[in-house]
Amino acid sequence: MRVLSYLQRAFHGRPYASKLLILCSISSGGLIAYADSQPDGKMSIVDHGNKKSQKKRVVVLGTGWAATSFLKDLDISSYDVQVVSPRNYFAFTPLLPSVTCGTVEARSIVEPVRNMIKKRNGEILFWEAECLKIDAANRRVFCKSTVDENLAGKDEFDLEYDCLVIAVGAEVNTFNIPGVAEYCHFLKEVEDAQRIRRTVIDCFEKAVLPGLTDEERKTNLHFVIVGGGPTGVEFAAELHDFVFEDLVNIYPGVKDLVKITVIQSGDHILNTFDERISTFAEQKFSRDGIEVLTGRRVVSVSDRIVNMKMKSNGEDISMPHGMVVWSTGVGSRPVVKDFMEQIGQGSRRVLATDEWLRVKGCEYVYALGDCTHLQQKKIKEDISEIFKAADKDNNGSLTIEEFREVIEDIIIRYPQVELYLQSKHLFDVVDLFKDAEGNDREEIDIEAFKLALSHVDTQMKSLPATAQVASQQGAYLARCFNLSEKCKRNPEGPRRFRSGGRHEFRPFRYKHFGQFAPLGGEQAAAELPGDWVSMGRSTQWLWYSVYASKQVSWRTRLLVVGDWSRRFLFGRDSSRI
Amino acid sequence: MRVLSYLQRAFHGRPYASKLLILCSISSGGLIAYADSQPDGKMSIVDHGNKKSQKKRVVVLGTGWAATSFLKDLDISSYDVQVVSPRNYFAFTPLLPSVTCGTVEARSIVEPVRNMIKKRNGEILFWEAECLKIDAANRRVFCKSTVDENLAGKDEFDLEYDCLVIAVGAEVNTFNIPGVAEYCHFLKEVEDAQRIRRTVIDCFEKAVLPGLTDEERKTNLHFVIVGGGPTGVEFAAELHDFVFEDLVNIYPGVKDLVKITVIQSGDHILNTFDERISTFAEQKFSRDGIEVLTGRRVVSVSDRIVNMKMKSNGEDISMPHGMVVWSTGVGSRPVVKDFMEQIGQGSRRVLATDEWLRVKGCEYVYALGDCTHLQQKKIKEDISEIFKAADKDNNGSLTIEEFREVIEDIIIRYPQVELYLQSKHLFDVVDLFKDAEGNDREEIDIEAFKLALSHVDTQMKSLPATAQVASQQGAYLARCFNLSEKCKRNPEGPRRFRSGGRHEFRPFRYKHFGQFAPLGGEQAAAELPGDWVSMGRSTQWLWYSVYASKQVSWRTRLLVVGDWSRRFLFGRDSSRI
Repeated sequence: MRVLSYLQRAFHGRPYASKLLILCSISSGGLIAYADSQPDGKMSIVDHGNKKSQKKRVVVLGTGWAATSFLKDLDISSYDVQVVSPRNYFAFTPLLPSVTCGTVEARSIVEPVRNMIKKRNGEILFWEAECLKIDAANRRVFCKSTVDENLAGKDEFDLEYDCLVIAVGAEVNTFNIPGVAEYCHFLKEVEDAQRIRRTVIDCFEKAVLPGLTDEERKTNLHFVIVGGGPTGVEFAAELHDFVFEDLVNIYPGVKDLVKITVIQSGDHILNTFDERISTFAEQKFSRDGIEVLTGRRVVSVSDRIVNMKMKSNGEDISMPHGMVVWSTGVGSRPVVKDFMEQIGQGSRRVLATDEWLRVKGCEYVYALGDCTHLQQKKIKEDISEIFKAADKDNNGSLTIEEFREVIEDIIIRYPQVELYLQSKHLFDVVDLFKDAEGNDREEIDIEAFKLALSHVDTQMKSLPATAQVASQQGAYLARCFNLSEKCKRNPEGPRRFRSGGRHEFRPFRYKHFGQFAPLGGEQAAAELPGDWVSMGRSTQWLWYSVYASKQVSWRTRLLVVGDWSRRFLFGRDSSRI
Repeated sequence: MRVLSYLQRAFHGRPYASKLLILCSISSGGLIAYADSQPDGKMSIVDHGNKKSQKKRVVVLGTGWAATSFLKDLDISSYDVQVVSPRNYFAFTPLLPSVTCGTVEARSIVEPVRNMIKKRNGEILFWEAECLKIDAANRRVFCKSTVDENLAGKDEFDLEYDCLVIAVGAEVNTFNIPGVAEYCHFLKEVEDAQRIRRTVIDCFEKAVLPGLTDEERKTNLHFVIVGGGPTGVEFAAELHDFVFEDLVNIYPGVKDLVKITVIQSGDHILNTFDERISTFAEQKFSRDGIEVLTGRRVVSVSDRIVNMKMKSNGEDISMPHGMVVWSTGVGSRPVVKDFMEQIGQGSRRVLATDEWLRVKGCEYVYALGDCTHLQQKKIKEDISEIFKAADKDNNGSLTIEEFREVIEDIIIRYPQVELYLQSKHLFDVVDLFKDAEGNDREEIDIEAFKLALSHVDTQMKSLPATAQVASQQGAYLARCFNLSEKCKRNPEGPRRFRSGGRHEFRPFRYKHFGQFAPLGGEQAAAELPGDWVSMGRSTQWLWYSVYASKQVSWRTRLLVVGDWSRRFLFGRDSSRI
């Protein structure tokens, strides 16, 4: 990942070079993935004595990015691991929009979990089941098989754990808007993508039948996407390509009746991206004839109509549709909500963890990925304790030397400090000691200290619900598990300013490697680290190369690249299966 | 097809040579398919004058082997063609058993109908709908869209036709055995194969869950196949490979609990094949541990139990199962049954046609493929008329010369005559003139003539319900349609012995190019033309080469060969999607 990120930066602005990168990364990606999958040598040096009796039982819920990343790095010589998930495969979710239109086949982006754990010598057990209830008090989870068929034997079972890792992901958030659950398509699971693909073909097949009015044909061929985030925009772009590269050739009669509309409540689509990207996307969509309606809130959906309200003047607007894809945000799953009630988090929207991914209010339970919200500690809350701990001579004032002694621990414990310094272009922390006029001070008192750090917490940002975050959290937690014995003896974390001593581990820290927004027609936009922005065809090739290299196995890599080649050669398949 | 058939014969018994053939046919297959898809030059010479006004409206029901073969060859400059089918794709059904276990992906064996008709300049219209009723009296079909979604516009429509081509195929025959429709899997459609694939994985996922007894695990892992014909046997073989090449590696705990059983009512599996193949298959299955139970009739199926009766002594036997695949025979679809009632064929089991594929008892309606039974004319019924027509001088006795004059027409009209001669190793028809002692006779009377031809009709065989038959019938009917104007003026068919004049066309005649039975473990058996039999690994490679070459498009050919390669490299995917 780092190699790739470095290359991305190095090649920025040189399209020809980024094309060269494709081959390198497609061919080297496997190597990186392979290297990634080797257990870290230094982690296995921890000796747990009599393994059998001392092995802790870890139950992992989920097989998404967070869970598989955790399992891949976990040292299973120290833990008895059981994994519970209703899906016996890992899905490469960033390619889901491609599956909706057959650019990539569903099977090409999934890898059986059992294949992944087989490589760990089979010491990880997997159960295809859904966790229905977490009993935190008795350290037990209750599960139910998700097998469709009525087969012999009971469906329910429960597992005891010493540590629980919750990585169940999130479900679509309908915001309780009437009709959304019944009439909208979502884009969270592989099955969703397959269903969308069938529905698009259904809309065309119905629209060309004899005896329909032009108005009815137009309604059936109106595809509405609610939500102008990366997923919604990518789906709109994919659908546009599918329709105008492939479908119009085989349904020539209805070519001019197709319409794609993106509804966005904010003022711009892709509003989490750099403004340049947002503008580029809007211009591209406008050229392509994809209508972008901003500043509108959907109030209800029926089988034929989407009802909206203009945010500016409250005006009601109705729009007939053939298909609606709902892509607006995520919410907690029922099992997580129930668990939150148990542990006193009932009033929260998302399960809260601390920076060590420990669930707040419950011991031995860790949570990561989309189902969690990592609550970062505000420096404001601890400011007096920090001052007290730093003020070694207890004279009520902090010298630069005293501050220098604790600053490293502060930066590790409160990552927002570093972000704040960067945002202010300060290269040395002692610049914080300067007074309002910018003059150096030798020492400062508690009030001046509070004032100097008063704006630091504004730099705190919630982590986005992305594969990148989940994957890094999984790897982080695995490392903590692997080093737990060692770090109990020799803590590696920062100083505890409040209670004294040191934290066992450094807190989790997210590294952003950038994000892509494919816009169709072989064009993409990318936000790369260091506020670099790249747009156009070369970025689409960069996208191909990065996504090919990030595949979890050589098998899926070959399949995905094969699918892309097939699409170039023969177009997308329109069979309704 | 002929080239390939010739090569098959030429290479029989030389395994090394048949391996060479693979490359040739994979690379040349496309060429053959391409050549096949070009409209035959000589057919378009027929001039229909003012095309628009004189064009006959042809409605084709179905998109299987028969229908697509008909459409491929039809000269659409003479006909307005509309196709109605609930499936907007053609499926290469002989590979369905491979889809059940993921050896080949479902999408690799389907080709969109619209792609196929696009190549014919779009003058063929396709409606994705099911034909619910044929109104033969008013030459009209009533159809209903099969789209899942509740889209705008009415679902039903009707079409008028001048000619109707029924090629809807057949449905599974449950023989009204209780529980079969509810609890058995079938293997007729692509969706069936996908469902079987998911169920196999379900059975394994359920069987490994904690808390099941060994007996329950065994039940869930008992796969029962009812019907020992080519489809059932191929599925059993595929399943065995899937389980023992792939699944046992990822479900190691239940390796020894898996059981596959084939139930056959007859005394042997593959009993339509040569006895050597049947024996070879039974021995192979016995080595593989696939149990073959013969002489048993299934009397009922429940969600957990298959109940059978021994045919020999009437004993009842029950067997717990995890999954049952029902593969015993085909029956008529409801729309065909209803049509048969209308035209006075209500007492028949299958729609009957004559040798020109015309539905008996109904004008302007043709039927072909699995939904029909081609009723061949018995020579016995016409024997007096033949004698009368041949006896030019009306002297009540037939000379060899008189017989020679009509023999060509007889052989064309009654193909069983040629088969009879072959079976008796007679090289000249006048050998029929010999008396019981084998002495030549100069002329014979009507009684001797009847006697000489009395055993000819025993050579008549019903056509099997295979892709080969359907495909040849489609091509035959297209040729008749293309030549209809020309042959009205200059009939090319045999003499009408009963009513005088000539038939417009030669009757349909099936050419058998042999059949394969893949038996798993890279072994197959094949029955090739000329009673040649080939078995073993080289036959499996012949199978690969023939099936690759027979694909309907370069796209599916590439996909199927790609799937085979993927399977060799990485095994089959066990993700439950």
